[in-house]
Amino acid sequence: MADAHTEAQPPAFLLDLDGTLVDNVYQHVMAWQQALEDMGVWVPVWRIHRRIGISAELMTRGVLREGGHEPTDEQMQRLKQLHGKRYVALRGSVRPLPGARELLDHLDAQQVPWIIASSSPPGDAEPMLDIIGLPADTPMVTGHDVTRAKPDPDLFLTAAARLGVDPNRAVVVGDSIWDLLAAQRAGALGLGLLCGGYSRNELERAGAYRVYQDPADLLQHIDELGVPNPGGAPGPST
Amino acid sequence: MADAHTEAQPPAFLLDLDGTLVDNVYQHVMAWQQALEDMGVWVPVWRIHRRIGISAELMTRGVLREGGHEPTDEQMQRLKQLHGKRYVALRGSVRPLPGARELLDHLDAQQVPWIIASSSPPGDAEPMLDIIGLPADTPMVTGHDVTRAKPDPDLFLTAAARLGVDPNRAVVVGDSIWDLLAAQRAGALGLGLLCGGYSRNELERAGAYRVYQDPADLLQHIDELGVPNPGGAPGPST
Repeated sequence: MADAHTEAQPPAFLLDLDGTLVDNVYQHVMAWQQALEDMGVWVPVWRIHRRIGISAELMTRGVLREGGHEPTDEQMQRLKQLHGKRYVALRGSVRPLPGARELLDHLDAQQVPWIIASSSPPGDAEPMLDIIGLPADTPMVTGHDVTRAKPDPDLFLTAAARLGVDPNRAVVVGDSIWDLLAAQRAGALGLGLLCGGYSRNELERAGAYRVYQDPADLLQHIDELGVPNPGGAPGPST
Repeated sequence: MADAHTEAQPPAFLLDLDGTLVDNVYQHVMAWQQALEDMGVWVPVWRIHRRIGISAELMTRGVLREGGHEPTDEQMQRLKQLHGKRYVALRGSVRPLPGARELLDHLDAQQVPWIIASSSPPGDAEPMLDIIGLPADTPMVTGHDVTRAKPDPDLFLTAAARLGVDPNRAVVVGDSIWDLLAAQRAGALGLGLLCGGYSRNELERAGAYRVYQDPADLLQHIDELGVPNPGGAPGPST
C-alpha cells in the first residue's frame, strides 16, 4: 500500500475565463477603447490590451494616468457602464477557445476539482459560461467576490477556499501576466496560455512554469501536470 | 572642412503603415476573423494577430493550414474581398498613433528622406493617409507594387529604390516581427515599435536594434538614429 505522505494528490485547477477559456480579449479591448472615447479620451489599443485581465478600475486608471488624466469616482462609474454596453454589442462574435469545454470535462472525468476565477463583474462573466456550453451554476468567483481583483491574489485565494484546497496545491491557468503575478502571490503554480495574445517570453518572465497554446494544447499535455491525459495515463516511469 | 568619407549621412526612413503610423491592427485582425467565419472557418484571434503584417495570402494560408484547411485560389480571392468589406465597416474607429504626423513632419524639416512601405493593397492603405493627415500623393509602396510582400524584403528594397538610397543606409520602422525580418533580409537597420501589440522581446529577437513605444517615443529619441531631435541637435560629444 502506498504511503500517504509520498503519494502526490492531483492538483486543483483555478482557471481564468477571458482569453483563457473564451476568445473575447479583443472584444473587451475594443469595448474599453470605445468607452474611453465616449468619455472624450482616445487611448491606443495596445496600451489597453497590455492591461486587460486586471480589475477595470486599475486598468482604466492606469491607461488614463499615462495620458495625464485622473478620473473622478463618478467618471470611473460611467466608464464601466459604457464598457458594459459596448461589450454587449460586440459579444455576439465571442466563441469558446479550442478545447475549453473538453478540458473541463476531462478534469471532471478525472475527479480533479476546478473553478473559474475572473476579474470581470458577473454580468460580463456569466454569459460566457453559456458560450462555453457550461451550466449557469458552474463554480466561479468573479470581481464582485473580492475587494481587490488581479493582480492581487485574492481571487485565486477565494477560489481555492471555495474548493476547500490549499492554494499551494493549485494550478492557476491564465493568458495574462496578471494571472501569473496573482498566482505567484497566492502561492499557486502558474501556467500560461498564448491564446490571449501575450508572448511566451512575457508569460515565462511573469512566472509561468509551462506555456501552452490554448486549452486544447494544455489538455494534450495534461499529464505534465500530474493528471492522466485523455489517451490514458502513462505507465510508471522505468 | 569635414572629410566626406568620415561624415555620416543621416539615414533614410522606410516606415510600415498599419500598427506603426495608424492604430488599426485590431480592426484588421477582427475583419480577418469575420471574413474567415463568413467562409465557415473560425480561427482564434491571437493566431491572426501573430501573422498580421505579412501578405494576406501568406497570413490566411498560414492560419488555415494550422486548422487543416487548404484554400483554393477562388476561396482566397473571396476571402480577400470579404476582409476588405469587413475592414471598411470597422475603419471608422481607426486613429493615427501618437506622434505619427509629427515624426514625418520632423523628418521633412530635417530633409531626411522617408517613404511608407505597406503589405496592404492600395484600397486599404490609401484611406489611412487621410487619417494621419497626409496628402494622397505621399510617397508609398504597397502590396500591389511587389510580387512578394513581407516577410520578403521586396517592399523595402522597392521603397529604398524609389527614394534612390542604398537599403544599407535605410532604417526600417515597423511594429511586427515580419517588418524586422524583411528589414534584415533587405540589409536595412530594423527598429521596432510596441504600438502594434508585439512585445519588446519578440521585436528584439526578430532583429530590432532599438524598440520604442510609438512614433511619439521614437521622435523623442530620434537623435539616437543620427537625426537631430526636435529640441535641437545635441552638441558634439566632449
